[in-house]
Amino acid sequence: MVKKEGLNVALVGATGAVGQQLLTTLAERSFPIKTLKVLSSPRSAGKKIDFNGETLTVEEATPEQFDGVDIAFFSAGGSVSKQLAPEAVKRGATVIDNTSAYRLDEQVPLVVPEVNEGDLHKHQGIVANPNCSTIQMVVALEPIKKAYGLKKVIVSTYQAVSGAGLSAVDEMYEQTQQILNDEAISPELLPVSKDEKHYQIAFNAIPQIDVFQDNGYTFEEMKMVNETKKILNDSDLPVSATCVRLPVETSHSESVYVETEKGGATAKDMQGVLKEGAGITLQDDPATQTYPLATDAKGLPDVFVGRVRQDLDAENGYHLWVVSDNLLKGAAFNSVQIAESLVELGLTKR
Amino acid sequence: MVKKEGLNVALVGATGAVGQQLLTTLAERSFPIKTLKVLSSPRSAGKKIDFNGETLTVEEATPEQFDGVDIAFFSAGGSVSKQLAPEAVKRGATVIDNTSAYRLDEQVPLVVPEVNEGDLHKHQGIVANPNCSTIQMVVALEPIKKAYGLKKVIVSTYQAVSGAGLSAVDEMYEQTQQILNDEAISPELLPVSKDEKHYQIAFNAIPQIDVFQDNGYTFEEMKMVNETKKILNDSDLPVSATCVRLPVETSHSESVYVETEKGGATAKDMQGVLKEGAGITLQDDPATQTYPLATDAKGLPDVFVGRVRQDLDAENGYHLWVVSDNLLKGAAFNSVQIAESLVELGLTKR
Repeated sequence: MVKKEGLNVALVGATGAVGQQLLTTLAERSFPIKTLKVLSSPRSAGKKIDFNGETLTVEEATPEQFDGVDIAFFSAGGSVSKQLAPEAVKRGATVIDNTSAYRLDEQVPLVVPEVNEGDLHKHQGIVANPNCSTIQMVVALEPIKKAYGLKKVIVSTYQAVSGAGLSAVDEMYEQTQQILNDEAISPELLPVSKDEKHYQIAFNAIPQIDVFQDNGYTFEEMKMVNETKKILNDSDLPVSATCVRLPVETSHSESVYVETEKGGATAKDMQGVLKEGAGITLQDDPATQTYPLATDAKGLPDVFVGRVRQDLDAENGYHLWVVSDNLLKGAAFNSVQIAESLVELGLTKR
Repeated sequence: MVKKEGLNVALVGATGAVGQQLLTTLAERSFPIKTLKVLSSPRSAGKKIDFNGETLTVEEATPEQFDGVDIAFFSAGGSVSKQLAPEAVKRGATVIDNTSAYRLDEQVPLVVPEVNEGDLHKHQGIVANPNCSTIQMVVALEPIKKAYGLKKVIVSTYQAVSGAGLSAVDEMYEQTQQILNDEAISPELLPVSKDEKHYQIAFNAIPQIDVFQDNGYTFEEMKMVNETKKILNDSDLPVSATCVRLPVETSHSESVYVETEKGGATAKDMQGVLKEGAGITLQDDPATQTYPLATDAKGLPDVFVGRVRQDLDAENGYHLWVVSDNLLKGAAFNSVQIAESLVELGLTKR
């Protein structure tokens, strides 16, 4: 495809769950594309992909593919990014990396545009897109931080299976049908495909996302902790997380407890602050049973916040229920927002 | 049925989810039964029920049915307990009530035997069985309280559908099959049958259990708050809860954050304390991906605790994952334990 105006874009990992959402989001938001290359591992090369009515052929991702590319989205796992992102940068591309490879690299801005768009000015070729569960939480925390300051954050997550990839979604649905049929099941992917043991996800809740770290927390939990501090530019902010996988296809839900520096705001004050927050849609009315639901959030770019309550004992404590589509604001949509910000700020070239 | 030794027992609500588990538990634990009456609403009267190889006929629960009864288990909703428990007491029965009707009544002990068996001495005819989500949490909190004292508790729950009754379980499975078939669904029961709106539970997470209170918390959340304080005999203990319904048939999971009075215990210290706790089975080894799972806990009386971690910032903060069968330790098993304690302490008669 060739257009007069726009950027030369490459997408690595085009056949994955996030890759497919990236293509949809680029099309829906009419991102200014001049040429688009869809790249992947050798295994998926040759596959056909629809984009805006055109059929594109997936090609193998090699260093040379990035010649002439302006923006390269990476969404094919950390090892691919580690290997190829520097090659893309060397050839002049700006990389928006959706893996965890560079997120905590001090040279790499980790960006949620509603929160820290300004950090893009510091990029040296790579911009990291945060972890899905982190993004939706920091979008909700940012207006609270601005209004009252943050003192402590504790989050328990209710995460969707699509965060583990399309094959995990297949496993969930297949296993669900087998259980309904009273057939034997054989979990092979969840909670972590590369880990030794696999557990039933259908009609269950698994308190493990990604592998365990030496401190007893999982890597997903430590992502939430470390990325939140980096994005909010507050390395001393106390953040702790418990991450749990649920039999939900798409959209992560989060039960977030926040203590603020300034106390005394009522739940209504907090709702007002959240309602005005960038990227947030407040859904909070107990009288009409209005609160965010994973099934409602699917396919929408917003971060939905509800169940806003003042803690019963701490006058500076608040409870929130935060829901967002993990493949959109949690991944593809945020990545495209980063690209848009780079264009707007004139930062696609260093 | 007539035996020489034992008590005259009545069970109100014999056809419900908890009622059926009560019958199984009474049989499994060889509770000393002389006669057993199975009672229910007029609608279910006449139904046949198996108990220990015998077939019992369900009879309508009327005041006169309690003549000569020693222990009456109530599990047919709060309004039935409000109406008939005093009638049973008047006729000399000791009532073990599994509804919320009397839980916060100052005259009524609210008992989890591992925690506050001694409160049974104060009973005046009625003993209340706490809410399912509360029971498993206080079993986990009690040894922590004894060893280090409790300063603050924050819980986010992952609750099973059977807590809303057998018809809710049917709705979940039926709805799941409809979604797998790509058919339209029409939620009618969950999250709260008597509430106005009903939402999809299959492949979803609903942040509402029971009706909303004026303070923005749900009744389930306030049960956890108020019952925990009463059972632990600490009305000043800060407790806050967010209660969420999941597409899980049986066993509630809970992400519990605890701050202790005495700080400095390591996660290993805490594991040691929990391992010795009455009613607790510790399942906690990240190296072998060992942690409690709802599907594993089903059918077992234990409270399973794992994912024990020290908070990353608060040296007196700890995170736990607490799982138990909501129909057993959360209801039937705890009720039978109360009955056993009453017998052992000679408290079946006032």
